[in-house]
Amino acid sequence: MNAATRRLRLGVVGLGRLGKRHAENLAYRVPGASLVAACSPLEEERAWAREALSEPRLYDDYADLLADREVDAVWLVTPSSLHAQQIVDALHAGKHVFCEKPLSLDLAECERVLAEAARYPHLQATIGFMRRFDPSYKDAFDRIQSGAIGRPFLVRSQTTDKNDNDGFFVRFAATSGGIFLDCTVHDIDVARWLLGKPRAKRVFAAGAVALHEGLREFGDVDNGVAICEFEDGKLAMFYASRTQAHGNDTHSEVIGTAGALAIGHNPRANRVEIYDATGIRNECTPSFFDRFEDAFLHEARAFVAAVQGGASSNVQSGATLADALEATRIGMALRQSLQSGEAVAL
Amino acid sequence: MNAATRRLRLGVVGLGRLGKRHAENLAYRVPGASLVAACSPLEEERAWAREALSEPRLYDDYADLLADREVDAVWLVTPSSLHAQQIVDALHAGKHVFCEKPLSLDLAECERVLAEAARYPHLQATIGFMRRFDPSYKDAFDRIQSGAIGRPFLVRSQTTDKNDNDGFFVRFAATSGGIFLDCTVHDIDVARWLLGKPRAKRVFAAGAVALHEGLREFGDVDNGVAICEFEDGKLAMFYASRTQAHGNDTHSEVIGTAGALAIGHNPRANRVEIYDATGIRNECTPSFFDRFEDAFLHEARAFVAAVQGGASSNVQSGATLADALEATRIGMALRQSLQSGEAVAL
Amino acid sequence: MNAATRRLRLGVVGLGRLGKRHAENLAYRVPGASLVAACSPLEEERAWAREALSEPRLYDDYADLLADREVDAVWLVTPSSLHAQQIVDALHAGKHVFCEKPLSLDLAECERVLAEAARYPHLQATIGFMRRFDPSYKDAFDRIQSGAIGRPFLVRSQTTDKNDNDGFFVRFAATSGGIFLDCTVHDIDVARWLLGKPRAKRVFAAGAVALHEGLREFGDVDNGVAICEFEDGKLAMFYASRTQAHGNDTHSEVIGTAGALAIGHNPRANRVEIYDATGIRNECTPSFFDRFEDAFLHEARAFVAAVQGGASSNVQSGATLADALEATRIGMALRQSLQSGEAVAL
Amino acid sequence: MNAATRRLRLGVVGLGRLGKRHAENLAYRVPGASLVAACSPLEEERAWAREALSEPRLYDDYADLLADREVDAVWLVTPSSLHAQQIVDALHAGKHVFCEKPLSLDLAECERVLAEAARYPHLQATIGFMRRFDPSYKDAFDRIQSGAIGRPFLVRSQTTDKNDNDGFFVRFAATSGGIFLDCTVHDIDVARWLLGKPRAKRVFAAGAVALHEGLREFGDVDNGVAICEFEDGKLAMFYASRTQAHGNDTHSEVIGTAGALAIGHNPRANRVEIYDATGIRNECTPSFFDRFEDAFLHEARAFVAAVQGGASSNVQSGATLADALEATRIGMALRQSLQSGEAVAL
Repeated sequence: MNAATRRLRLGVVGLGRLGKRHAENLAYRVPGASLVAACSPLEEERAWAREALSEPRLYDDYADLLADREVDAVWLVTPSSLHAQQIVDALHAGKHVFCEKPLSLDLAECERVLAEAARYPHLQATIGFMRRFDPSYKDAFDRIQSGAIGRPFLVRSQTTDKNDNDGFFVRFAATSGGIFLDCTVHDIDVARWLLGKPRAKRVFAAGAVALHEGLREFGDVDNGVAICEFEDGKLAMFYASRTQAHGNDTHSEVIGTAGALAIGHNPRANRVEIYDATGIRNECTPSFFDRFEDAFLHEARAFVAAVQGGASSNVQSGATLADALEATRIGMALRQSLQSGEAVAL
Repeated sequence: MNAATRRLRLGVVGLGRLGKRHAENLAYRVPGASLVAACSPLEEERAWAREALSEPRLYDDYADLLADREVDAVWLVTPSSLHAQQIVDALHAGKHVFCEKPLSLDLAECERVLAEAARYPHLQATIGFMRRFDPSYKDAFDRIQSGAIGRPFLVRSQTTDKNDNDGFFVRFAATSGGIFLDCTVHDIDVARWLLGKPRAKRVFAAGAVALHEGLREFGDVDNGVAICEFEDGKLAMFYASRTQAHGNDTHSEVIGTAGALAIGHNPRANRVEIYDATGIRNECTPSFFDRFEDAFLHEARAFVAAVQGGASSNVQSGATLADALEATRIGMALRQSLQSGEAVAL
Repeated sequence: MNAATRRLRLGVVGLGRLGKRHAENLAYRVPGASLVAACSPLEEERAWAREALSEPRLYDDYADLLADREVDAVWLVTPSSLHAQQIVDALHAGKHVFCEKPLSLDLAECERVLAEAARYPHLQATIGFMRRFDPSYKDAFDRIQSGAIGRPFLVRSQTTDKNDNDGFFVRFAATSGGIFLDCTVHDIDVARWLLGKPRAKRVFAAGAVALHEGLREFGDVDNGVAICEFEDGKLAMFYASRTQAHGNDTHSEVIGTAGALAIGHNPRANRVEIYDATGIRNECTPSFFDRFEDAFLHEARAFVAAVQGGASSNVQSGATLADALEATRIGMALRQSLQSGEAVAL
Repeated sequence: MNAATRRLRLGVVGLGRLGKRHAENLAYRVPGASLVAACSPLEEERAWAREALSEPRLYDDYADLLADREVDAVWLVTPSSLHAQQIVDALHAGKHVFCEKPLSLDLAECERVLAEAARYPHLQATIGFMRRFDPSYKDAFDRIQSGAIGRPFLVRSQTTDKNDNDGFFVRFAATSGGIFLDCTVHDIDVARWLLGKPRAKRVFAAGAVALHEGLREFGDVDNGVAICEFEDGKLAMFYASRTQAHGNDTHSEVIGTAGALAIGHNPRANRVEIYDATGIRNECTPSFFDRFEDAFLHEARAFVAAVQGGASSNVQSGATLADALEATRIGMALRQSLQSGEAVAL
């Protein structure tokens, strides 16, 4: 970074666990950025910001943050149901916007955001599919671009979480959109990204309730499997689980006509191997939070670089609103297939 | 083995590449067995047998071998289309029978064999799903039985072969039954075996022609993916491929409520790792033949032990005719789903 | 970090490749630190600093930086032969000091620095053995402390670099101290740290010139092996190499009475595995620079935290001057053994 | 094998655990061999042979077996102290001889056997260093021969056993020769074999008593480390342990000027990986018996092929008496170095 470049002034909105991480990254670890403002309706979260960040201006109302002329961009880490309107409001206020996934669980709303955003082509609007910024996913992407595996035609990708006995996600089931929209949406984005953004044409999904019976009343499952057929004979297989014993196990494979790549096949927590009476083992990343620590940072840097580089920017780009819309469209079709037992054409 | 037990006298039928391996195992590596006869319509195969085996009686006609009173059991390694009738003929002749998979690609024929076999309960009739005898698959099975992973509910299993530029399987496509009946049938049996033999209730399949365009005229693909829903909320995902760059990569996973097991995740050719300018690598098993060398031997020993142990035998059992029928039934449903684009209920 | 804590104002000295990395970490990624000054005799390095850092005060003379009252601590990334005197000068100037390894290649000089430092107990003086801050090494250390492997009694550790055809280290051989003082010194520190800082009592070393004949005139080798016996029956084995084909392969094992730990056994560049006609492989970390990227950052944070926490600080501590002296003492004995062919008692 | 070749008639001597395995291999799994006789002074071992083998002639006295004209070769699995004289006696009786390692723990006796054997050049005399016949070690050897790693110059090799709380080897310490002659002798042979049979010129060894204090009175240790310098700048590092928690962990690496090979880096029991709350693990080979099951079989086949092929035989050859002598010579120097604390020149 050239220190002379004008710093991008950001305001973070939402200071839950993930919001705090984003805030710390933006405050201290992204050279061209200044985190100048933070917004949360909760006093305890603002108190955290007062301590942890460097002289932030604090707001309890999103509208007030948007009115702050010293804020160039907003970083939304808010409940999913607020995303769409908050993005539109940010664009109206002339601010670049980064928003955690999902764009929306409602297709019409997704489309409304895209239509609004089309009116502000000079503003960056990115949805946070952070895997694109994980160094290993990025390396795989680059290898594919360089032709290392020939023509890629199949992605297998999974998002599986360590079982949470408290079943937070069961209480969350009414609004999460179900396992495919909550978890698999990441794998959908990975598959489209690695396969060259093909359009989906048909999906099928099935599922099982392994441990959390409470999900049944929401038509949801704690383990789901799916197939997605894209145009041009490209394929994806997905697996999502809430009930793994060993940790968060996010991995993906992409298979081409001349080779294949696997990303994260063994979800090693680090470089340590333990030799004891049970054999030889490594511990696993406990949560996506640990697994994607680097990715969140690279994502923040890339967003800042994209804004600063303008339209000609050549930096690794995050998911566009159109990508997010497509991921939601496919995720909804998976949910429909799960519930109907039929293949769903798109 | 107690050397005093009367040796089982076997006749092998079919002496192609796989037939030769079975013959050598039965001749030299299965303590309680004597390979006393071999049958092939090809003079060069009989010539091989004359050299390689120990004083075998050679036949060019299966009926003659069946008439040999000194043969207790037949070992069929013949073309798939002959299996059903040859099994029935062996039973009629009072001989135990081992037959390579598949039982038949025709469901009615499968059922006819089962009906016949029901009349000969004292005769062993086993279909050769050798993975059950691979020491690693067997170890996983035993761990599941002991409760190591809780209740198993999902199997993911694949059969993928190194690409054969000659495309032998393209010429073979008219009679192979397609990729699911030819390859995935092994994974189907593995899934049912590891999940406690549940009945399938619905399947969905899709596929791609990555390299071998000649398959299209047969409605076949060189890469296929599938989901199988069993009763009781159990699931399986399958992948089959003819086009891998790295070798035969047969692996399976079974996921339970308290843990998971993977079998063969890295298809290592052996225990050597190579460090050079390309990184650190291991070579892969080139073909199923190399991967399952041990399994073929254990399979032969288990068959002999089962015959010798009689009904009370507690040895690891191979696939029954009923298992083979179920594998064919599911494989055919996968083919139907591939061709229709619809989920198929069973 | 509490944002209210007074920031530690640092000056970096030496802006070569490693100096630049330290400078960027201190400038942007260590919350409690401000990099306020930089010193280099080279105009091009100062020009880099002018661009890359945020308003640094620039010096071409170390004495001028030491005279800067706004600098609390100096960070030395200078040629090894300057380290000892520069540390002493920094302490005399009342500044905390971090210095890259080695303390000195001369034992008397090491002892002189310790004697001087004893007069400034309120000042932090740390030598940069960064492996202690690598998350995996740190995890292994913590496991040992918790008793996971019983009593540790053997460390095996290696530092091996990708072969450099240009042979930079051959030209550097006259002043590097040889392979054991240049490379193995890290492994010596790791061994002492993981084994509870035992004193060495005897060493033996041997070596080979695999590729770089030019080393012979310096009595140096491009591959060295060594054994170190510590008091209390503890042992270490070391390997150092300049000629690896696959990359920088830094790994260590520690073996205890109830288990063992390996750190970095496969020097994976990232989480990607490549499947192609050569097998399954991962690429390797090309250099220590890539391998220890995180460690350099954690090291900087720990130094700042140690200064800010004062004597009561409980943060992970870096190598003390006494540790560095001991590493040099052992390294010199290894060199002596290599050259004499005899075991050397300490 | 051509079935017409005259079968080699073998007599096995010693029917302990390892003797039984050899006997079963020779009886049932080596096509050109017939195990026609067995010798043991213990009635229970002869009883086992009566049951398990196929019509063996049983002897309780080695001299009687040697007098059996129907025995072409003897297979010695007897106590080490008997090896040398039994080999000489077999040669005098005109029989080929295979003998488990070691040849002898006494150098003069080794040399006496070599002198006797020189009088019987038509008789095969092989010492059982079975690692040469392990498929992975063999693959590494072949790769080296083909130039895959350039010029090999360093071997690191270890023999480490799962801790035996009963401490059998403590009771055995008086006659075992100590850890280097009992365990490392395999690694010495591996190093010489992989490096092209260089002569050793200097060794150094050190050790620790981690758990088994009873070894001290014999001057022995339960963990030993060593360096061996060969002529031509070749090197080896050895590690031997009786106290591993995870299993038998036999592995070796060979490093060359253009790459490296590792054999058995992770001592996997099989292809299963277990995912549970402790992470991802594989179990380990519990003992050398499990690890080298295949090697013992290949070793037997190679011996039979070598005898049948005569002098022109091109089969993989086992260790010669001269190899065994050299391994003993180096092992004794290691013991001397351990006890003296000095490097020992050879």
